[in-house]
Amino acid sequence: MNLLNVGTVAFDTVETPFGRREKITGGAAYFTSWAASYFVDQVRLVSIVGADYPQSEIDAMQARGIDTSGLEIKKDGKTFFWEGKYLDNMNARETITTDLNVLDDFNPILPEHYKDSQYIMLGNLTPQIQLQVIEQLTTLPKIIALDTMNFWMDIALEQLKTVLQRVNLLTINDEEARQLSGEYSLVKAADIIHQMGPEILVIKKGEHGALLFNEGQIFMAPALPLRRVADPTGAGDTFAGGMMGYLAMTDDTSFANIKRAVIHGSAMASFCVEDYSIGGLKNLSPEKIKRRIEAFKMLTAF
Amino acid sequence: MNLLNVGTVAFDTVETPFGRREKITGGAAYFTSWAASYFVDQVRLVSIVGADYPQSEIDAMQARGIDTSGLEIKKDGKTFFWEGKYLDNMNARETITTDLNVLDDFNPILPEHYKDSQYIMLGNLTPQIQLQVIEQLTTLPKIIALDTMNFWMDIALEQLKTVLQRVNLLTINDEEARQLSGEYSLVKAADIIHQMGPEILVIKKGEHGALLFNEGQIFMAPALPLRRVADPTGAGDTFAGGMMGYLAMTDDTSFANIKRAVIHGSAMASFCVEDYSIGGLKNLSPEKIKRRIEAFKMLTAF
Repeated sequence: MNLLNVGTVAFDTVETPFGRREKITGGAAYFTSWAASYFVDQVRLVSIVGADYPQSEIDAMQARGIDTSGLEIKKDGKTFFWEGKYLDNMNARETITTDLNVLDDFNPILPEHYKDSQYIMLGNLTPQIQLQVIEQLTTLPKIIALDTMNFWMDIALEQLKTVLQRVNLLTINDEEARQLSGEYSLVKAADIIHQMGPEILVIKKGEHGALLFNEGQIFMAPALPLRRVADPTGAGDTFAGGMMGYLAMTDDTSFANIKRAVIHGSAMASFCVEDYSIGGLKNLSPEKIKRRIEAFKMLTAF
Repeated sequence: MNLLNVGTVAFDTVETPFGRREKITGGAAYFTSWAASYFVDQVRLVSIVGADYPQSEIDAMQARGIDTSGLEIKKDGKTFFWEGKYLDNMNARETITTDLNVLDDFNPILPEHYKDSQYIMLGNLTPQIQLQVIEQLTTLPKIIALDTMNFWMDIALEQLKTVLQRVNLLTINDEEARQLSGEYSLVKAADIIHQMGPEILVIKKGEHGALLFNEGQIFMAPALPLRRVADPTGAGDTFAGGMMGYLAMTDDTSFANIKRAVIHGSAMASFCVEDYSIGGLKNLSPEKIKRRIEAFKMLTAF
């Protein structure tokens, strides 16, 4: 099966209470593609970078089987740059710099052979661009998943609602679920969000895990308490990549299997936060992933 | 088996985004005793109230089998009063008023027949008073559990550390665990807190559930996402009461059983928050509690 990832490929400067790294590689579609590459053969990337983006990074993605033919390299542009600082509680962060650079006129064109993609992950971008991707698909996908954030709810709510009607799975955090639905109770919020389009809602709660709402049922995936958390950047995207990669690999959208997908996403996110950039995702093996899944099972078994 | 609960019995005025209730009954030992009364026969209460405290409340506790002979009624005093307001995110609250009243010279004296208590729950009070209770015990209990808060870490850290050496189980929230240990990682925090005394650490995370650390193992109890949350006041104490009540009932301190105890505490807390004061704890049955435990099992099964 195949998975199409649309989103940013970026440089990040991150500062946590434990350290600072300058201009390391990041971006939603970058993390998502790396995570998904452990599950699904055909990971298809759509993004844009500038001439400053290292060819070695593109080579490394290709070596993992990621199809980068949808990665536009803008010769006269600079790669999207984000700088952020994590507060003492690493669940909160502040943005210091956002240089859109090439992202400013990102107009994603799907390569011909991407247009029949069956699993789609739309990373956090303007709702308009997300919609534009959906409209280029020539066959009906099994799952279109969308990530978004409060910023788009503030400034582009109507466009967001339009694209949500075309989406099967939405990933947001708890505060965003409350904002989007106007309900405090996440159970009630899920009811309202289901009516907006996505029949599957995944609420990401960072170090507190994730909640899945589907078919009137609820599943809670814990986050694994870790001895070392280096950098939470990309954890949400890695989660999405693991989840969608697992769904695409198994090609089974039953509630039971979506639960397993959410656990696989959580496991990949737990590897991600243990290092900077994709450091924690580079040298994984099926065996290592399986052991981490076992740790998740133990964590909630009683 | 028996359970000794030491802590406040109070009047609360609470305001949430959904409503306000004035001068309703509350207090840590009140919630703990009510929750525990569904599991253990001999719940022994130690607290203090003023002449303004309604006899009907004391009668209701006795009707549930709670031994109130350790509840001092100070004729010339007023009952402890707390007023608080919950913010939009009900996981955070601000205190508006704290009138210690009779609590100001609370000097808990254990009735003779309490002194052989096997399970002890010391609610959040000054570390000095908590120690004073421990020193009145004539036999070595199976489990002494202690609840505390950041306030005592700020102003009475040395006394707190002294009492922690005598304690088997500590309940605090995640920020407090970080403050007490000086470690961000809760796994590392648990290592340090174990060295301070308590071999069992329970980190309460409100709507995000609870983490149990014991014998080098970790267990995560989810919180049940609820359609209606009326008032979180007392949820942590109800959790402690359910947990300690279950431990006292089963008289088994293995890790496997402490996990079950934490789930029973979580279940009781989920009933608590659905109503004000002890409204959600009044008309429970073993069948109703069992069904709620099943819901917790479903929530994390994959």
